[in-house]
Amino acid sequence: MAVTYTLIKECPTTGARAGILHTPHGDVPTPVFMPVGTQATVKTMSPEELKEIGAGIILSNTYHLYLRPGHELIREAGGLHKFMNWDRAILTDSGGFQVFSLGDLRKIKEEGVTFRSHIDGSEHFLSPEKVMEIQEALGSDIIMAFDECAPYPADREYIKNSLERTTRWAERCKKAHTRQDQALFGIVQGGMYADLRQESARQLVPMDFPGYAVGGLSVGEPAHLMYEMLEATVPLLPQNKPRYLMGVGTADYLIEGVSRGIDMFDCVLPTRIARNGTVMTRDGYLTVRNAPYAKDFRPLEEGCECYACRNYTRAYIRHLIKTNEIFGFRLTTYHNLYVLAHFMAKLRESILNGTFPDVYQEFTARFGRKKED
Amino acid sequence: MAVTYTLIKECPTTGARAGILHTPHGDVPTPVFMPVGTQATVKTMSPEELKEIGAGIILSNTYHLYLRPGHELIREAGGLHKFMNWDRAILTDSGGFQVFSLGDLRKIKEEGVTFRSHIDGSEHFLSPEKVMEIQEALGSDIIMAFDECAPYPADREYIKNSLERTTRWAERCKKAHTRQDQALFGIVQGGMYADLRQESARQLVPMDFPGYAVGGLSVGEPAHLMYEMLEATVPLLPQNKPRYLMGVGTADYLIEGVSRGIDMFDCVLPTRIARNGTVMTRDGYLTVRNAPYAKDFRPLEEGCECYACRNYTRAYIRHLIKTNEIFGFRLTTYHNLYVLAHFMAKLRESILNGTFPDVYQEFTARFGRKKED
Repeated sequence: MAVTYTLIKECPTTGARAGILHTPHGDVPTPVFMPVGTQATVKTMSPEELKEIGAGIILSNTYHLYLRPGHELIREAGGLHKFMNWDRAILTDSGGFQVFSLGDLRKIKEEGVTFRSHIDGSEHFLSPEKVMEIQEALGSDIIMAFDECAPYPADREYIKNSLERTTRWAERCKKAHTRQDQALFGIVQGGMYADLRQESARQLVPMDFPGYAVGGLSVGEPAHLMYEMLEATVPLLPQNKPRYLMGVGTADYLIEGVSRGIDMFDCVLPTRIARNGTVMTRDGYLTVRNAPYAKDFRPLEEGCECYACRNYTRAYIRHLIKTNEIFGFRLTTYHNLYVLAHFMAKLRESILNGTFPDVYQEFTARFGRKKED
Repeated sequence: MAVTYTLIKECPTTGARAGILHTPHGDVPTPVFMPVGTQATVKTMSPEELKEIGAGIILSNTYHLYLRPGHELIREAGGLHKFMNWDRAILTDSGGFQVFSLGDLRKIKEEGVTFRSHIDGSEHFLSPEKVMEIQEALGSDIIMAFDECAPYPADREYIKNSLERTTRWAERCKKAHTRQDQALFGIVQGGMYADLRQESARQLVPMDFPGYAVGGLSVGEPAHLMYEMLEATVPLLPQNKPRYLMGVGTADYLIEGVSRGIDMFDCVLPTRIARNGTVMTRDGYLTVRNAPYAKDFRPLEEGCECYACRNYTRAYIRHLIKTNEIFGFRLTTYHNLYVLAHFMAKLRESILNGTFPDVYQEFTARFGRKKED
């Protein structure tokens, strides 16, 4: 199999687990947060900086790359790894989330989805087969089945029909997929209905995908619903395969996901808020572009060992962000990705040495107390 | 003296010369092109990348830093070097060029210039004394006298009055300047009138500045006028002091400036065109954002050893620029600064080994033949 998972240790009192994801482009210790490189680049970062931060796997996007520069061009370039000069693992999202986010610009049928490009309005058609063709051209290590990411809220009938179509599409993806060096993951849907989540999982697990994602969460629902859906779903997923919670990337959701048995996460939030001048700290968030930091000569986060914190002050970074200087966005992005990489490494370490429940308790206590520095 | 110049070798048949600029933040081999970091950052670049490219001195801007974040803040931060994490040499422009570019937003009197900020319209006053105060707060190694960069075209009477005021301002700058660890350079003006250029030089040279700039060129005049002004001015400048041609940064102007005895240059052009998707090559310019490069899997410039050319294709960089991705601007900027740094190093080497006239001839022959790849 192209991608396998080795379970190393489970937390005896929570669902947390530490493992290794083996890919054709290297091993990735889990749990892991995957930085998002939507358009074949993690915004503002070089591959070398991502490695310095410790990234072993990044995510890129089928919908965006299909539109620009086109998957055939990337195939000609020798695949996405070579195109973007990244020799570690890549996971590509199927484009389902992006296409369904287009609202009035798309039409869903059993065969697939017709949509208009958000860039130039041109009409396109994505089907499970087409999405496999695109991802095979990209050559990512992990590719995702084409699913419907249903809206929230949505009624039970809609969700039931949708998840069943997602299962049929997963079957078509599996049938269409030919590259032996790629792993195709299935995606559990089911909206905010625990029994439908379980039905989705029961349909997909026998299809024996090498990994499973939980999709359609972090779409605007209250946190407790996300946690309930995870608790209903994860126990039905195979223990020997990686589990991926899509679209999650804040420390609180990450630790809650890990405690419920999730191994992989991704989210644009850490890089997006960085470009708006907000950084993540162990106490929540700090909006360095705000006036109180104008003459603050401390690093973004005291004690942080990242490149930005070792060399620059809040005052300097605020100046750069206020004057729209790219190097400012580089520094805040670097810091946020470093913070999440080290947070995940810390969680992993605590699972391995048996202290995860303490780390979890300490985090939730502190995070409840204070969100902004 | 804070900054001294060692002349190492002169070309016997042209004015070209190789030397070393000694500064409190290191020695800089000359002739040199100084990358511009207007707002305390060379746009898109980290200090480490600038060092990798070989930059020993960069330029920053008094007008911009005075407005944002303010020179007092930079003084509190420990000076510009510390603020921006750059431990090599810095030259700051006096703000004269920026203030005079404001047109209707500024009023010139003998005492100084009243102007409105281009950012928020607030009113400010810059005088020779104020400009010294600001640059002393910044702590740059080389600071520039406050001058009037006269418009082109301008009549003889205007230019004559203007250059005489520039001389009086230079005297006031010299009187106001106190920091022994900084070198204050004078600026020769005189518009496009050779005799007025010479008059300006004759007024400034006896004031014994540690270096001289030629200002008010590269302001829209035809190239031959620039060359004539240099030929009229440079022979009057002291041989044992550095000579700086302000606002020049294309290969053709650089080699022409070097051949006429200029040691230092700066210009925003290489970094600005990079962010518009145009790169410099040994044959002129290549606009990588253009359609013909969509499937071009060659580097920006074949044979170039820079980071961008060693690792990325035109197709990838075009994709990044077209999708407005910051990493694309980083790569084109890196390449352009590398090209100029290596071009200047090559000129210096040729002066040292006596082949500058050949290099000059070869360049002008090739450049005339072909401008775009």
